[in-house]
Amino acid sequence: MRGVVLRSPGDVRVEHRDDPTITAPTDAVIRLSATCVCGSDLWPYRGIEPVTGPAPMGHEYVGVVEEVGDAVRTVRPGQFVVGSFFASDNTCEICRDGYQSSCVHRVPMGAIGSQAELLRVPLADGTLVATPDLPPADLIPGFLAASDVLGTGWFGAVAAQAGPGRTVAVVGDGAVGLLGVLAARQLGSERIIAMSRHEPRQRLAREFGATDIVTERGDEGVARIKDLTNGLGAHSVIEAVGTQESMMQAIRSTRPGGHVGYVGVSHGVELPGEELFFSHVNLHGGPAPVRRFLPELIDLIWNRRIDPGRVFDLELPLDQAAEGYRAMDERRAIKTLLTF
Amino acid sequence: MRGVVLRSPGDVRVEHRDDPTITAPTDAVIRLSATCVCGSDLWPYRGIEPVTGPAPMGHEYVGVVEEVGDAVRTVRPGQFVVGSFFASDNTCEICRDGYQSSCVHRVPMGAIGSQAELLRVPLADGTLVATPDLPPADLIPGFLAASDVLGTGWFGAVAAQAGPGRTVAVVGDGAVGLLGVLAARQLGSERIIAMSRHEPRQRLAREFGATDIVTERGDEGVARIKDLTNGLGAHSVIEAVGTQESMMQAIRSTRPGGHVGYVGVSHGVELPGEELFFSHVNLHGGPAPVRRFLPELIDLIWNRRIDPGRVFDLELPLDQAAEGYRAMDERRAIKTLLTF
Repeated sequence: MRGVVLRSPGDVRVEHRDDPTITAPTDAVIRLSATCVCGSDLWPYRGIEPVTGPAPMGHEYVGVVEEVGDAVRTVRPGQFVVGSFFASDNTCEICRDGYQSSCVHRVPMGAIGSQAELLRVPLADGTLVATPDLPPADLIPGFLAASDVLGTGWFGAVAAQAGPGRTVAVVGDGAVGLLGVLAARQLGSERIIAMSRHEPRQRLAREFGATDIVTERGDEGVARIKDLTNGLGAHSVIEAVGTQESMMQAIRSTRPGGHVGYVGVSHGVELPGEELFFSHVNLHGGPAPVRRFLPELIDLIWNRRIDPGRVFDLELPLDQAAEGYRAMDERRAIKTLLTF
Repeated sequence: MRGVVLRSPGDVRVEHRDDPTITAPTDAVIRLSATCVCGSDLWPYRGIEPVTGPAPMGHEYVGVVEEVGDAVRTVRPGQFVVGSFFASDNTCEICRDGYQSSCVHRVPMGAIGSQAELLRVPLADGTLVATPDLPPADLIPGFLAASDVLGTGWFGAVAAQAGPGRTVAVVGDGAVGLLGVLAARQLGSERIIAMSRHEPRQRLAREFGATDIVTERGDEGVARIKDLTNGLGAHSVIEAVGTQESMMQAIRSTRPGGHVGYVGVSHGVELPGEELFFSHVNLHGGPAPVRRFLPELIDLIWNRRIDPGRVFDLELPLDQAAEGYRAMDERRAIKTLLTF
């Protein structure tokens, strides 16, 4: 099969890789209907995370089940399925508490590489959720978004306790931040402030439910959020970047007793204990337990109540994956969909 | 009147101070029935927090109302009242959300100094809660504990979401940690692990409801908590120290999706963002909004359902305050009660 491989920072290639096979009775193999490039794929692409040897890339996936191991009970060949970036058994104590991305048996899908024609999915029963039927083509981008960026934005909104009567601010205007806006709206927040200085992203934020746009960053951005919230700060702040600046912007934009949901993968962040202590914020986040939300998200997409696939503003065949990475790195694209 | 003054690190004196008067129509003046020394008073005593000039000390207080300003409606002279270490209006949006210690009009009582015979309490209506009647003498230590250490331990337990079915670990065996044990028990947790290597404190922890004692600290302490929790960590961890070591011990002792309630005043703490991200813990704490809990705590003490006054293991007349500080500094006493 063909699959994306990162040979060194900046060097993305589509190469021949061996077809995956069932290696454990709990595995499934799926044929991808589409895959995509994640903002977090840019960390090794930019050399900020080390690249050790040729690395298969990608951890977002939807597709049709080709084959399942003997122990698989809940999905079967021919079904269209959505999974998340950690395979999980969905039965351990941590999974049952809703933290499947910390499952005691979790497997990171990024190490297997979903930017490929076929993908082995471990712990298929716990990981994969089937749609009611084969979806029409126009819904496939939405389901693919559910695999990570929608699920991650949703977790950010849940961790920030977005909901009726709560003003939400969103730090970060990538796909996760934009879908955090959508999630906050779905969860019932009436007022949603998107922090973005990029006009096309501002527009999409408004379409997803943002009521206010703040273009300032850092201390000025915090001051603008305070201006908009009676001097107090937002009740809920979704952090979707992962840098020191964005984390402090999120914490400082939150009122005492408010909630920060942080889902940008943390890089080089050190939180000052004393400031955090006196901030009185609730801080929660981490790798989103997307599996917790998949049944609900699939239902919303299937019934066309949300259209998260709109974050894909560049569609390329798999063979042009390198251009897909480049466009996102240069912020010419929000998110690249790869087709077969 | 007589009052405790810290002249420089280690130099505690009882001096003549001017009697307080009503300076705003929302003030009350109370005559203290007892006061006490807080673990946080030891930070300036030890020179870890700067001491700028002679500083009146103390922020914990119970007593009888002597006089109220014209605008005070809910307390009156002759009532026995309990307040907290921040005066608060109890009407602003932040107070109504239960974060009175971040009230937009808050006044730190430590700057006024409650280790004295008389105390001016700003925002009396929002700050003071009266007991049903004048209490018998043996209940006074309990009400004094409610003013800070009980309320703080209680907030730690609430922030850590202690409750039925949730295993709680407590980092720190000072008065706050011990009362965090008591709070976790009251909130319904059946299993409470106190981390302490001091035998008298272990005994009090057990009397307050601890079911397990862990004497190890740091990584070994974390490993012991994991051993006791099926390898996963506690659901709820109360942090009651405020150092880098204790914060990391608390975070690492918590299972993914679990809650850290941190109430030890943070000193020199820097939290590593990446570890926090992948820990999946919920982090909440800060200066306890004791006022939120006072009505409930007063009711529990009045009806003798809890006896938090047992954390006072040294009782001295005000004039011997210096010895009270020394005994706590040297860990010869858990907490010093000062009488008149």
